[in-house]
Amino acid sequence: MAAKLGIFAGGGELPLRIIEACRAVERSIFVIAVEGAADPAAMAGVPHAWVRLGAAGEALRLLREQRIVEVVFAGSIKRPALLSLRPDWRAAKFFARVGYRALGDDGLLTAVIREFEGEGFRVIGADELLGSALATVGPLGRHVPDAQAEDDIALGFRVVRALGALDIGQAAVVQQGLVLGVEAIEGTDALITRCAALRREGPGGVLVKAPKPGQERRADLPTIGRRTVEGAAAAGLRGIAVEAGASLVIDHAAVAVAADRAGLFVVGVAPP
Amino acid sequence: MAAKLGIFAGGGELPLRIIEACRAVERSIFVIAVEGAADPAAMAGVPHAWVRLGAAGEALRLLREQRIVEVVFAGSIKRPALLSLRPDWRAAKFFARVGYRALGDDGLLTAVIREFEGEGFRVIGADELLGSALATVGPLGRHVPDAQAEDDIALGFRVVRALGALDIGQAAVVQQGLVLGVEAIEGTDALITRCAALRREGPGGVLVKAPKPGQERRADLPTIGRRTVEGAAAAGLRGIAVEAGASLVIDHAAVAVAADRAGLFVVGVAPP
Repeated sequence: MAAKLGIFAGGGELPLRIIEACRAVERSIFVIAVEGAADPAAMAGVPHAWVRLGAAGEALRLLREQRIVEVVFAGSIKRPALLSLRPDWRAAKFFARVGYRALGDDGLLTAVIREFEGEGFRVIGADELLGSALATVGPLGRHVPDAQAEDDIALGFRVVRALGALDIGQAAVVQQGLVLGVEAIEGTDALITRCAALRREGPGGVLVKAPKPGQERRADLPTIGRRTVEGAAAAGLRGIAVEAGASLVIDHAAVAVAADRAGLFVVGVAPP
Repeated sequence: MAAKLGIFAGGGELPLRIIEACRAVERSIFVIAVEGAADPAAMAGVPHAWVRLGAAGEALRLLREQRIVEVVFAGSIKRPALLSLRPDWRAAKFFARVGYRALGDDGLLTAVIREFEGEGFRVIGADELLGSALATVGPLGRHVPDAQAEDDIALGFRVVRALGALDIGQAAVVQQGLVLGVEAIEGTDALITRCAALRREGPGGVLVKAPKPGQERRADLPTIGRRTVEGAAAAGLRGIAVEAGASLVIDHAAVAVAADRAGLFVVGVAPP
């Protein structure tokens, strides 16, 4: 049996999926639930401790107390301004070295992972635990993009890669060649909601998600789930495209069912 | 006295400013007010006709009837989907040649300007009529950016230029090194409003506006005015930076007064 796993739990469905996956193989876990991000309901019956972002020393102490070597970062964390982070001495030491303001989200996560490795932990990706969750090439469900949607998908990937190169965001919505919206710190759900009001007549838009070029694969991979599909449908979108092999689809079957029910396509696209 | 000027009026303050500038020098004008975009109040006492976007043949007929040779495009137009544009035969001919879906906003405007030139019109930029409206290098008003704000401005320009290269938008909001939001089709006012909710603790963010690289200067130059300053202040931003010589500041004096009153900086930055 694998050793106890430490799970840093942020927001969204991903932490719960990892908890469930570990339960299925009877792997023991300890969850560091990030205050203000992790879902309290997901912690029911699970060994865990709530830790505020910035309390790095406490997190390290907890992991060592639990004799944990392998850790995974799962779920989204809204990055606060440095002032409200209230770093403890360990976090302050880290920030003093890497600089906080100079780093984008991805740069910061990469630095955090290196820091844990420097402390002797092994950091694994959520996709290693949920191997089958990686998006594959082709449609999930029975709907497929038409020619206009294919054009929108191609433009969306160009946009998202340009955003990613600047470490801004991972998602964009394109309708009939118009970029309706691009994601920065607000997150994909807020982007989708906003684009409902920006929608043009005619065939609806497409949500495109892709990792940043050179993104640290063990942190914050683009993720979609049933709720993403339902949100996209509510916003009048026609479909979702993600980069195959580099995006997580939480529960393929549930996503396919939701997509079929809503009449949306969900498609994995091979990287360029 | 200069010949009669044709003004294509979209949304925002710019058309009214041009109307006023022409009135000040007693230049006669005729306004083609774009339905759903131009401000009806600005048309009071001004020779004008309402024309829907897509009715290119009618616009050309009106301009010729008025013996107009020189035209200016002023103000924002929310680009509709092709289906709702209902192009007349003249617009359809144009779209058939240039393609609608393949063009971004800027590409479309450039094509429209070329089309008017092909019809024998001279297209001038709003900045030629409001020469003093171009942003100059340095602060407008008494507030200036501090070191953190300078860093945010520099990052904002990098982001906006990357967006512009893909013809996505002209604006971004950056706070303490975090890109809070980037503009796509929603426009700058909506971007500013959204970023109020995304604000982090500590020193506020900065709005950066710059033209797209290689942007057609006679159409849709980045524009700020008193209302932009007031909106930025309401959203908790600390200041606004625009590219000097390539952005319009509507009424420098009013902008400076509003900025001083709100405690914001407004600064023109030399292009790289």
